[in-house]
Amino acid sequence: MTENMERIKADWIAVDWGTSNMRAWAMRSSGTILAEDRSDLGMGKLTPEGFEPALLGVIDAWIDGPTTVVACGMVGSRQGWTEAPYATVPCPALPDGFATAPTKKDGLTVRIIPGIKQDAPADVMRGEETQIAGYLARNPNWDGVICLPGTHTKWVHVSAGEIVSFQTFMTGELFATISTHTVLRHSIPAEGWDEAAFLEGLSDAVARPERIGARLFSLRAEGLVNGMSGDTARARLSGLLIGTELAAAKPYWLGQQIAVIGAGNIARLYVDALATLSAPATQVKADAITIAGLTAAYGRLKG
Amino acid sequence: MTENMERIKADWIAVDWGTSNMRAWAMRSSGTILAEDRSDLGMGKLTPEGFEPALLGVIDAWIDGPTTVVACGMVGSRQGWTEAPYATVPCPALPDGFATAPTKKDGLTVRIIPGIKQDAPADVMRGEETQIAGYLARNPNWDGVICLPGTHTKWVHVSAGEIVSFQTFMTGELFATISTHTVLRHSIPAEGWDEAAFLEGLSDAVARPERIGARLFSLRAEGLVNGMSGDTARARLSGLLIGTELAAAKPYWLGQQIAVIGAGNIARLYVDALATLSAPATQVKADAITIAGLTAAYGRLKG
Repeated sequence: MTENMERIKADWIAVDWGTSNMRAWAMRSSGTILAEDRSDLGMGKLTPEGFEPALLGVIDAWIDGPTTVVACGMVGSRQGWTEAPYATVPCPALPDGFATAPTKKDGLTVRIIPGIKQDAPADVMRGEETQIAGYLARNPNWDGVICLPGTHTKWVHVSAGEIVSFQTFMTGELFATISTHTVLRHSIPAEGWDEAAFLEGLSDAVARPERIGARLFSLRAEGLVNGMSGDTARARLSGLLIGTELAAAKPYWLGQQIAVIGAGNIARLYVDALATLSAPATQVKADAITIAGLTAAYGRLKG
Repeated sequence: MTENMERIKADWIAVDWGTSNMRAWAMRSSGTILAEDRSDLGMGKLTPEGFEPALLGVIDAWIDGPTTVVACGMVGSRQGWTEAPYATVPCPALPDGFATAPTKKDGLTVRIIPGIKQDAPADVMRGEETQIAGYLARNPNWDGVICLPGTHTKWVHVSAGEIVSFQTFMTGELFATISTHTVLRHSIPAEGWDEAAFLEGLSDAVARPERIGARLFSLRAEGLVNGMSGDTARARLSGLLIGTELAAAKPYWLGQQIAVIGAGNIARLYVDALATLSAPATQVKADAITIAGLTAAYGRLKG
């Protein structure tokens, strides 16, 4: 550390710890972000003993005296650092039952936000509840449906400050898996886009969602028989998968106030797709919302 | 070769050469099988120069003088030994245009059966046309629908000795990919079965095929929340995927005479599934049918 760099001293630390990576923010009590760092030591790469060293590898320089860490995500799963058992809907996005992870370092307290489950139809979330809490902290008394697109897209019905019901779709993971691990890998490039093909795939799938199985192979066949481009195939696959999801998620989005929380590109696709179904949605950036949720959780613990 | 082993001399050789492996049969002109062998040097592992050595590695001992090999499958694709361009439906299962592969060995003639394509909706097959030809050779004047379940299941409308139309579903590949490359790999074992769960998944998906995206993640969630077993999850996934296919393939199977050509277990699943939809189907073993098709092709070439 050079002399003219001021040492960062966090009042508390916010952590979003998923399966494949971890992000941490040095925070002031006021909610100001002092610093940000990340690690690719996600939950999936760690045994229980590995979590504290992995965490300290990122945050140690921010600690001076007793410090509370508030974490969300797969770090609280049964395969994680310590299990933060699921709360059951209907319940607040930040339910009781924060877990305390076992730590060796003096003065380090790590609290993990519980995931949320639904018994019927069975469903689970870990991490998204914190984003929902962040959205509600910024939009008090908001009722409606929150869509969180990603690897496992969640549709969440929120009312009176509680999560009422939710449903998960494997859309993002299906896109990644189908385009890299099936015969379609020969037809779908890693990059490239054709907006018209996306919208076509979307409207086809919304209208006839049961044909998804047949439409997938036709992406390959259209390339072989009719020379369809990779850009077109990639966008069309995305449209088909999101359209199939929207057909099934209709009870969630129809006639509801909708917020889409996600990284820029994927959230925009969902907002565009919903617009074609006359379902206007507000796009919300995920990062700031995650920090707002972790801040709300820290406030709960302090208060 | 020991002294009391008689040397096999094939009149001709039948070859089924797919993406992942190759099977060859030493044949008498009469159609009797003299010997059978296989190799895991599928089309996907070979460059064009590699095909002849790979073939001779299996059949050289059966050759004594000029010999004709009749081959079907991906060996005739653009990435194969030599391209046998697609014929376009409607056309006979064994159309004109057999390709001749370039060979170095004196007296070796290798003929490759063309694949078949459909322009709209775009679709392709390579290898299945030979099984269809085999089925029609054994059942002259048969009209109806042939289902060939597998990695890429084909539904084929056959009338007046011609392939009229067909549609491919990626059901088998989706099952393999989803159960090994997505989060469901934690829930789906490599073996295990629960017939009731298969039938439940099937009837759910036939009734509400558009919900497939939501139902997939619920296999994971049912395990976490309600302790669903791996056997149940595996069979239910199979039922869901086959049910989604059958919902889309209804124009093919409804009110038709149906033959299901495939390996024992997968063909039985389709026959059982069709039975629940009051669509009786005949199960046909794939191996014998492939040889019958190659034999019919050899007859065409000779005669």
